[in-house]
Amino acid sequence: MAAPLHGTRTIKQAISFITLGVRDLARSRAFYAALGWRESSGSQPAVAFFQAGSVAFALFARESLAEDANVPSSGSGFAGFTLAHNVASEEAVVATLREAVAAGGRLVREGEKAPWGGFRGYFADPDGFLWEVCFNPFFPLDEDGFVRLPA
Amino acid sequence: MAAPLHGTRTIKQAISFITLGVRDLARSRAFYAALGWRESSGSQPAVAFFQAGSVAFALFARESLAEDANVPSSGSGFAGFTLAHNVASEEAVVATLREAVAAGGRLVREGEKAPWGGFRGYFADPDGFLWEVCFNPFFPLDEDGFVRLPA
Repeated sequence: MAAPLHGTRTIKQAISFITLGVRDLARSRAFYAALGWRESSGSQPAVAFFQAGSVAFALFARESLAEDANVPSSGSGFAGFTLAHNVASEEAVVATLREAVAAGGRLVREGEKAPWGGFRGYFADPDGFLWEVCFNPFFPLDEDGFVRLPA
Repeated sequence: MAAPLHGTRTIKQAISFITLGVRDLARSRAFYAALGWRESSGSQPAVAFFQAGSVAFALFARESLAEDANVPSSGSGFAGFTLAHNVASEEAVVATLREAVAAGGRLVREGEKAPWGGFRGYFADPDGFLWEVCFNPFFPLDEDGFVRLPA
């Protein structure tokens, strides 16, 4: 597929932002606040920013995001991706799913054993964006609570 | 909307994984490899893992991801979210977009001034997942090349 790239690459192995295009920004802000997430002081009326480790998480109006990306905003059904929040035990999966539901999330899959040996469930945020809550015994969390893949 | 959460929360402000549900895993692997991204040795035949700062990035078959999340796999159009790769200058935006196209990506928006004062363009990966390439003078990159939002 690809023409070989010559010389030094500019791109590095990094994701800077994940931006969700939401239907009702106030509703989404309230949900993530109820989860206990604190907005950056860099947030603005039209966009909410949250630091999440080395990645920034943003909430922005769906129409505005589509317009910025130069694509039609129409679309429905499975968005084709998931976000995951990994925790340190099966019990923490269950507790976190309960917290997400208490915050106004919708339970999509109860916490249960996964075929690959972990334990996970899913909740949906107000727009239906899917969050997996997962205990993965094969990828332990580092001291900051983030997954560190084997090199 | 939300019932107040009592006691100590389990959930923290963290994103562990971003998983894209792709139509052709081999094609997607080839694209990200052509971008210069190196897979973790924890990758498996059915799933590709990449460390991207504190977040892990994964490629997984779309049907399998929907099944894992317990949702129908049907869906089309704008997925409602974007990933972003921030760089340190306008020139680096242009260079990175060129690299992405050379790797087999599709140019969705040329690098150009954004209304908010930055400079950005977009490319799409083989499934149409949107990557913004952005120079944001208001959110400088840290020494590791990641955005650090103001607290």
